[in-house]
Amino acid sequence: MGNTFGKLFRVTTFGESHGGVVGVIIDGCPPCLEISEIDIQKDLNRRRPGQSKITTTRNETDQCEIVSGIFNGLTLGTPITILVHNKDFFTQDYDELSDKFRPSHADWTYETKYKIRNWQGGGRSSARETIGRVAAGAIAKKVLEQFNKVEIISYVKQVNYLEAIINPDKITFEQVENNLIRCPDPKIANQMISLIEDTKKNNDSIGGVIECVVRNSPKGLGEPVFDKLEADLAKAVMSLPASKGFEIGSGFRGTLMTGSQHNDEFYIDKIGNVRTKTNNSGGIQGGISNGENIIIRTAFKPIATIGLKQKTVTSGNLEVFLTSKGRHDPCVLPRAVPMVDAMVALVLCDHLLRWQAQCKVLN
Amino acid sequence: MGNTFGKLFRVTTFGESHGGVVGVIIDGCPPCLEISEIDIQKDLNRRRPGQSKITTTRNETDQCEIVSGIFNGLTLGTPITILVHNKDFFTQDYDELSDKFRPSHADWTYETKYKIRNWQGGGRSSARETIGRVAAGAIAKKVLEQFNKVEIISYVKQVNYLEAIINPDKITFEQVENNLIRCPDPKIANQMISLIEDTKKNNDSIGGVIECVVRNSPKGLGEPVFDKLEADLAKAVMSLPASKGFEIGSGFRGTLMTGSQHNDEFYIDKIGNVRTKTNNSGGIQGGISNGENIIIRTAFKPIATIGLKQKTVTSGNLEVFLTSKGRHDPCVLPRAVPMVDAMVALVLCDHLLRWQAQCKVLN
Amino acid sequence: MGNTFGKLFRVTTFGESHGGVVGVIIDGCPPCLEISEIDIQKDLNRRRPGQSKITTTRNETDQCEIVSGIFNGLTLGTPITILVHNKDFFTQDYDELSDKFRPSHADWTYETKYKIRNWQGGGRSSARETIGRVAAGAIAKKVLEQFNKVEIISYVKQVNYLEAIINPDKITFEQVENNLIRCPDPKIANQMISLIEDTKKNNDSIGGVIECVVRNSPKGLGEPVFDKLEADLAKAVMSLPASKGFEIGSGFRGTLMTGSQHNDEFYIDKIGNVRTKTNNSGGIQGGISNGENIIIRTAFKPIATIGLKQKTVTSGNLEVFLTSKGRHDPCVLPRAVPMVDAMVALVLCDHLLRWQAQCKVLN
Amino acid sequence: MGNTFGKLFRVTTFGESHGGVVGVIIDGCPPCLEISEIDIQKDLNRRRPGQSKITTTRNETDQCEIVSGIFNGLTLGTPITILVHNKDFFTQDYDELSDKFRPSHADWTYETKYKIRNWQGGGRSSARETIGRVAAGAIAKKVLEQFNKVEIISYVKQVNYLEAIINPDKITFEQVENNLIRCPDPKIANQMISLIEDTKKNNDSIGGVIECVVRNSPKGLGEPVFDKLEADLAKAVMSLPASKGFEIGSGFRGTLMTGSQHNDEFYIDKIGNVRTKTNNSGGIQGGISNGENIIIRTAFKPIATIGLKQKTVTSGNLEVFLTSKGRHDPCVLPRAVPMVDAMVALVLCDHLLRWQAQCKVLN
Repeated sequence: MGNTFGKLFRVTTFGESHGGVVGVIIDGCPPCLEISEIDIQKDLNRRRPGQSKITTTRNETDQCEIVSGIFNGLTLGTPITILVHNKDFFTQDYDELSDKFRPSHADWTYETKYKIRNWQGGGRSSARETIGRVAAGAIAKKVLEQFNKVEIISYVKQVNYLEAIINPDKITFEQVENNLIRCPDPKIANQMISLIEDTKKNNDSIGGVIECVVRNSPKGLGEPVFDKLEADLAKAVMSLPASKGFEIGSGFRGTLMTGSQHNDEFYIDKIGNVRTKTNNSGGIQGGISNGENIIIRTAFKPIATIGLKQKTVTSGNLEVFLTSKGRHDPCVLPRAVPMVDAMVALVLCDHLLRWQAQCKVLN
Repeated sequence: MGNTFGKLFRVTTFGESHGGVVGVIIDGCPPCLEISEIDIQKDLNRRRPGQSKITTTRNETDQCEIVSGIFNGLTLGTPITILVHNKDFFTQDYDELSDKFRPSHADWTYETKYKIRNWQGGGRSSARETIGRVAAGAIAKKVLEQFNKVEIISYVKQVNYLEAIINPDKITFEQVENNLIRCPDPKIANQMISLIEDTKKNNDSIGGVIECVVRNSPKGLGEPVFDKLEADLAKAVMSLPASKGFEIGSGFRGTLMTGSQHNDEFYIDKIGNVRTKTNNSGGIQGGISNGENIIIRTAFKPIATIGLKQKTVTSGNLEVFLTSKGRHDPCVLPRAVPMVDAMVALVLCDHLLRWQAQCKVLN
Repeated sequence: MGNTFGKLFRVTTFGESHGGVVGVIIDGCPPCLEISEIDIQKDLNRRRPGQSKITTTRNETDQCEIVSGIFNGLTLGTPITILVHNKDFFTQDYDELSDKFRPSHADWTYETKYKIRNWQGGGRSSARETIGRVAAGAIAKKVLEQFNKVEIISYVKQVNYLEAIINPDKITFEQVENNLIRCPDPKIANQMISLIEDTKKNNDSIGGVIECVVRNSPKGLGEPVFDKLEADLAKAVMSLPASKGFEIGSGFRGTLMTGSQHNDEFYIDKIGNVRTKTNNSGGIQGGISNGENIIIRTAFKPIATIGLKQKTVTSGNLEVFLTSKGRHDPCVLPRAVPMVDAMVALVLCDHLLRWQAQCKVLN
Repeated sequence: MGNTFGKLFRVTTFGESHGGVVGVIIDGCPPCLEISEIDIQKDLNRRRPGQSKITTTRNETDQCEIVSGIFNGLTLGTPITILVHNKDFFTQDYDELSDKFRPSHADWTYETKYKIRNWQGGGRSSARETIGRVAAGAIAKKVLEQFNKVEIISYVKQVNYLEAIINPDKITFEQVENNLIRCPDPKIANQMISLIEDTKKNNDSIGGVIECVVRNSPKGLGEPVFDKLEADLAKAVMSLPASKGFEIGSGFRGTLMTGSQHNDEFYIDKIGNVRTKTNNSGGIQGGISNGENIIIRTAFKPIATIGLKQKTVTSGNLEVFLTSKGRHDPCVLPRAVPMVDAMVALVLCDHLLRWQAQCKVLN
């Protein structure tokens, strides 16, 4: 259970890190949408390991193959299946992990829950699982773009103590892609890269914050009560590996304001639209998008797998030392950027279909 | 849509603030569990308006009535329906709101989405909806308690700039209930109460942070990938009115640590159990509970409805001024404490049933 | 679990026969639809006990009350809750049933599954549960009528050995309502009524078949593979009490035809529409409605509760005799007609929303 | 949408007849269950085309490959993915079908709904989709067998006018597999085979009825109200291609009995168990299994694709003649037997997990 996301635009991922294949099925995609492997590969390339000197050296090309749901370049309205074959893996790197649990990793909880796990490369808990999310997100983004030219742009806002200054209303995708760390503040970006390189040398890892802005957000997405748009966004990004925190709009900082400071005053703009002067709400009010930019932030911890010697235990309940040999990222952030993009796209696309169902059927 | 929460322990709330009734249906509750209206009323009393000088003066006793699913004091395994009748409401307070949208409230987005809304007391977007959640949570807590003596204790951690020092491993429910603000740090609690009283005098509102600890957490709850336990907890609390941020364990602070600092070292305790030395993970690793205390924090903004004059617009697209007359809370936190308790209980209870289904059927 | 039906137009029923209340919540209804208690009561009156000499003498007026989701006579898009209070019940009629299981009733399986049951009037397994379905169906029918003037007409096709001759393409609702048994073949209807009266005198019960026709069916409803429209219709009516069989179009009779006889030849009608000459498909091909009339039949067994002396067992595992004293219907069919109407309406309305979501969002 | 079945044991199929691959994902399978490709292949071989002279001559070996979810021969508790590559297909056979709609096939409704379809071999509506169901069913059967030695045996009960006499309580799997038509009444089986051969020569098709018996059925499966076990079984088999009717226990024949004839008298057997003398209920009472054999029947129409010349229309709305050239089955029944087995196994396995969740968590 737990491998499916979304109510109408339904995404199911599958596959283990060192199994033969990872992939995704998307059910509920609107028919007659143009989709090609190129659309998907673009995003997978942003996620793939081995893309730069600040990511893991595992070198997967992550070539995707669409094996169902497309006919003559168009979606059929039936399940779209996308496969990526695992290629560059050394299971011998993981022999020690068959028995020793990495601290703060999924190893021990999987073993405790299921009494079995694929300990090669993290198995199902590996970030390779997110290939399916990113592939599905590429399709969701196409639906959103076609519907309303919706733009979803994530970027690295903070790495450890280094915080960038970025204007989410103005930033472009090209600016994000302009450097290895995907931080559109060039000066801070360079410092971030240096910090990650140093961390890598130390066999350690560091974390940070990714911010995501949604522009041209449709109005009216999100549902009262449990399926508020921010609730589903929170779930979406908190399901990514290594995420520890979520904020929308003013977030935790908003707790330091009074209501009169925090409230986003309404006004009528020049073309007669209702707008808000400020956007502490982060584009969502009462759980429903108001058409302003949606802005969220996700905190990622330093990843658990490090090359330093650590104390841990074995499956036989012995206390031992462990020094991980598997290749891993010193900082998950640059590769997590397309993951956040994808998860936000999946939530919006699903809610777009839900809105269409309930609010347009009799209009 | 969006009014149901949970996969197996399924909770559906209904009702508008100034409609006749609010309530909840719980489907999937284990049979033969002892439940009485007293169990539920205890939690509803902690949530009800008018409970103290720092909450809204709307005075509802919120007496609950169980109208289905219980027989001779025991659950039948069929849907449990709980009703609370609305009593103390003045619809005339809201006449102005039929036309003017409160800034940062759900008014405008509901109107935009549905082309209709019950503008009396916020209708469905009112915090009265959470009565159903708290009632359902009381039952979920009984299931969890009976299963493993699970304890769920939420408390106010921060009000605006005032932050309490609290040890989540030691705190008691009685300490939480010891003062009006539900902050088990008595000195800071008094300052918080004064600050809220001042805010109330100013016709303004303030926010803060609620922390929740789960003790005796069962191991193995949560599912890989999308339904990670922290993802479902995030969704749960981010669906509460006025919430703007969520953290688990180290949260945003964890982004400032290195992996070697952040990782929770495993050891074997005196009775042979695998434990962790630190708990930066917040009781969840790889999306699955590890038996350590689960610790989450939720940020609540200052609530939108304030007595101060604000600029806004009308349904006829005119810019106007609005001074809200309805009774409201100057600070949502003391009443949000039982709401957080309830949402956490709903998530854990649902995942307990899911774990039982998949992992125990062949054992 | 199991008390919710539908994916987008979601209906949850609750309540026991002799509890305080039975009712329903409808989540996902389109907003701004005119709904009043009168719309719903009309259908409830067709279902209510005590409506004629051939139904049970339990005399419930089944007055419904809408307690949420409607504002100024229009749906809000939020959950609609409808309650009906149980009034005319004698729990003493059921004292014997606390211990003795009625043969072929739900008594024993409920007890075995849950180790508890409300044995008064069948508790949750009582046909009173269908009040919620009929109330929800009344709203679904309004959605369908507004969308495409969809007409759903069920009627009694067969009672025991008596089978009526009815043209589903022509029959009117008025003809159905023209007699107590709801069979629009007046001559056979009278024979059916006599047969039921005789059965009642004998303290026995009889069954039969209800046919349902959907006219002005929208094209394109139903989904490939598991959620074929006929599959969801089958589930819908097979979830009604006492149903034992389901057919669509040619049904079991179709197994006696060859493909060349069974296939429905396509042609172009005078106004240029694609139509079929015959309708062995029953309005659905490949799981998707083709715009022809949808025709289904449901078999209902004779109901289990009879006034004759029967052998059975007790909860203490003794073999005993039982003569039921509770009031019951000699034949479920006249009251099951509005239940079938309702279930068909729920399926179509749900699939209408699903079609709208997937197939109209980018058109 | 509509490509997923089950609530806890969740099965999603994907793939088109003449696309590269068809397959299935199973999410929610209990961990540590022994599964190999051999287990699955056994059932796929019973379903595969080209297996005998009375099936289609399309010759697919349908070799399955498990690409995720299994480690060292055991299930991991994470999604199991099974792929089958399509091999023996001639797309040229279908050129004519790109434009002409086969009568009573899914061609026209797919085109009408989605404005696009893969017209090669029926695309998604092809019976090749059922490969995924049969593969998943093989796993479900293993769970059920391990839980309670549950046996699920389907067989051909009727082909056109030829009806076999079979005792569902005694029949063995070997007897079913003893002849090409899978009818364990050898004399009638031969007549059925002859009739199908004649039909094949005539380029026509015929239908019939499959009966399925479940022995050692666990008690307590099925849920009150909408998810009654027979309702879910009805949906399951009515989602199979070409099915037109469903019966449980006495079925349509039961409408000719009185309650006193139909009721299944309870008694205590020699080892103290509550049993029923007769089994008109078909093993389910009040929607919940009672431990007696579950017996259902499914009617299959003659399949739509025939080699005879038929009138139809084109996508350009012209009336034309069509003579199908694609290879197809003269009678779907022998290959539908493992499909019914699989669907019944999926329903029971899902309900087993549901029962485990709700009824065992506090026991």
